[in-house]
Amino acid sequence: MSNPSSQKPLKLGIAGLGTVGAGVVRLLQTNAQSVTHRAGRPIEIIAISAKNRDKNRGIDLSHIQWYDNPLDLAADPNIDIIVELIGGANGIAHELVYAALNANKGVVTANKALIALHGNDLAKLAEQKKLPLLFEAAVAGGIPVIKTIKEALTADRLKRIGGILNGTCNYILTAMAKTGCQFDEILKETQELGYAEADPSTDIDGFDAAHKLAILASLGFGHTINFKDVFVEGIRGINPCDLHYAQELGYVIKLVGMAQQHKDNRIELRVHPALLPNDAPLARVNGVTNAVFTEGEFSGRLMLEGAGAGEGPTSTAVSADIIDLARGNTIPMWGTDWNGLTPATVIPQSEFNKAYYIRLMVVDQPGVVADIATILKEHHVSLRSLLQHGTITTQTQKEIVPIILVTHQTRENSLLQALEAIQKLPVITEKPVMIRIEEA
Amino acid sequence: MSNPSSQKPLKLGIAGLGTVGAGVVRLLQTNAQSVTHRAGRPIEIIAISAKNRDKNRGIDLSHIQWYDNPLDLAADPNIDIIVELIGGANGIAHELVYAALNANKGVVTANKALIALHGNDLAKLAEQKKLPLLFEAAVAGGIPVIKTIKEALTADRLKRIGGILNGTCNYILTAMAKTGCQFDEILKETQELGYAEADPSTDIDGFDAAHKLAILASLGFGHTINFKDVFVEGIRGINPCDLHYAQELGYVIKLVGMAQQHKDNRIELRVHPALLPNDAPLARVNGVTNAVFTEGEFSGRLMLEGAGAGEGPTSTAVSADIIDLARGNTIPMWGTDWNGLTPATVIPQSEFNKAYYIRLMVVDQPGVVADIATILKEHHVSLRSLLQHGTITTQTQKEIVPIILVTHQTRENSLLQALEAIQKLPVITEKPVMIRIEEA
Repeated sequence: MSNPSSQKPLKLGIAGLGTVGAGVVRLLQTNAQSVTHRAGRPIEIIAISAKNRDKNRGIDLSHIQWYDNPLDLAADPNIDIIVELIGGANGIAHELVYAALNANKGVVTANKALIALHGNDLAKLAEQKKLPLLFEAAVAGGIPVIKTIKEALTADRLKRIGGILNGTCNYILTAMAKTGCQFDEILKETQELGYAEADPSTDIDGFDAAHKLAILASLGFGHTINFKDVFVEGIRGINPCDLHYAQELGYVIKLVGMAQQHKDNRIELRVHPALLPNDAPLARVNGVTNAVFTEGEFSGRLMLEGAGAGEGPTSTAVSADIIDLARGNTIPMWGTDWNGLTPATVIPQSEFNKAYYIRLMVVDQPGVVADIATILKEHHVSLRSLLQHGTITTQTQKEIVPIILVTHQTRENSLLQALEAIQKLPVITEKPVMIRIEEA
Repeated sequence: MSNPSSQKPLKLGIAGLGTVGAGVVRLLQTNAQSVTHRAGRPIEIIAISAKNRDKNRGIDLSHIQWYDNPLDLAADPNIDIIVELIGGANGIAHELVYAALNANKGVVTANKALIALHGNDLAKLAEQKKLPLLFEAAVAGGIPVIKTIKEALTADRLKRIGGILNGTCNYILTAMAKTGCQFDEILKETQELGYAEADPSTDIDGFDAAHKLAILASLGFGHTINFKDVFVEGIRGINPCDLHYAQELGYVIKLVGMAQQHKDNRIELRVHPALLPNDAPLARVNGVTNAVFTEGEFSGRLMLEGAGAGEGPTSTAVSADIIDLARGNTIPMWGTDWNGLTPATVIPQSEFNKAYYIRLMVVDQPGVVADIATILKEHHVSLRSLLQHGTITTQTQKEIVPIILVTHQTRENSLLQALEAIQKLPVITEKPVMIRIEEA
């Protein structure tokens, strides 16, 4: 039988030596022997481009060609595959991936923003060029959810895909629930621990999770998606008291991403904080862990849980893509040829139909609840429960107290209109807080 | 861009039309259009062999060649791929898979016994013939654990693989815990529900789970495994009172499969009932659900949970393999070429090193506990807790009471010797019950 070591090596050019880039080099060097057997041929890193050549990353970069400009990797005729680990939807990463495909090189990337925003153009170009473009590490780090949806569930029609897709938000919410501390305080701690970026906006405002959700929905439903159609709401507005009241009601609060294929062929694409019942599978996913579930007509419910980030898990995912390419994987970028995709029609926020948690801060005086209930009734919003945390009202000083409402399923538009009217009541002291409830 | 419908079809011969076989036909017929796009070419079922042609399975078998003898599929020159869904390690399924490879046809199978017992020979033959042999549905039905270990985690070295691998046992133990009913009673109910076979031995004696564990360990550790080396203990000996006492101690009892790569390169391969702490990820996996976790040097911990059996999930897995073959998947059967595998050295039961739950039935009289404790001490078994459920002893009638012991980690051999000595004490009325405790 043939010896994989004597086969033609697959030659890589790696762009970016951050946590993931350095991790990929370390993993491929550490496990070179078994990787050769598993890839069927040697995998050689022949060139690298990154910002700082001299930084000590604990990996051996001798015998590897260094380019200061990542675009030089695309121009190097000896390179078979470009591994893009720079990140960012636009700028140099974007330029490099296009240059690589145009130079007839396959691409492996961990860049969720690039795939979410430019994936459709890239898929067309890759198909024209008959080139592979793999991106397992772009969603949920070490959890092989791209491969699962694209290959393992490919015969099925998925109806729902959802999950906890951002470890930073999950860590912050888990810590807020545990300590009762305010968002800003926990965010600062999270940044010190290295679980949040110096500019945390992409994570905490929900865009990172939305990028991932758009990618999963494209793969799972066979749709081209315009990223702007994803409804996105981050976790900045979450107050520790909401985590506390949610707990009293038997729920936890998590940032979730939910994609659903409706019977009318429209899809729902939402990223937002949600109340999950304590016994929901996603409710127990804590800290930086990620989890993704799928529901298919034939495959039923499947859930994957693991490390959503970190050097080792993400490097394992990038290396799996590289080994797939060494083996000659020819699956199109979105799991189907371009003609197998249909453009998504995305359901607008006004048509969301859920149960809701509402917190109103009110001046505690007789008749408040009646006024609120009347407005809700006028807007056809029906209540499942009402929790009033009143303190004793004195004659001289009116106390401000929270009223917690849980609605039955209702159209979001109606509820938003009701809340607008409620906010105008003189007893309401703050903008009402509204958090969607996710029953599954 | 090229139209997949006009590409050369992949022609299948399917052997076996039980739940899974009929399901595969149904799935490929229902989703023919999207499957063509995802496979890059049409997938045609051109021939079928099964026991009864006339049985109504709700699928259209017209225009499909029928063979009474499955071996005729291997001889049909128009067939590209044989899909073996008959089952059984030996007999006709075994003969058909060899005949298919020898006739230069690729194979897709859901046959765990065949792969666990003959996988090494088959891998050698498939490699010689340069033919694919895929078996995703052989382990954990609709959970893509084969693909995950073989492709997604292939760059990593796994240290542990474990899980709940048999839905029948998990259903029975879940029902016993819930109802307090005896094993035999629940087994009968489970058979009536269709979750257990008329001859339930393969499931409840642990062999089905052991087949799956051996397959996962081969893939994950890169070892050839002699199936006889897997330690197997089933669930017939589990008494509802043990489920009850376990609960008192904060544990559930599940049939688990555990594979572990030790630092000395030997591996542990065990299938047996185990006490799992209530908060362990596997503890909450109930009913017919299966779950598998992996722990890797780089990839960390990953867990997959879903339907371990059933028409839809298993058919999705078989169809994924078929689509992979249509796309030209060339990954070797064990994820590496033959020379990348090393023979496993398996740790014998005597060297297992765990904490244990022990139930002794004793005649309640003074000095009993002291006698037992002395014997344990002589065998260097140290106790973590002792639970005595004594009833009041009368002068005239000695009561028989259970004593529940939980040991610290100890070598299994020492414990077995201690239990042998304890069993000889005149106060012991039954063979001691010993169940391993799995902390993770």
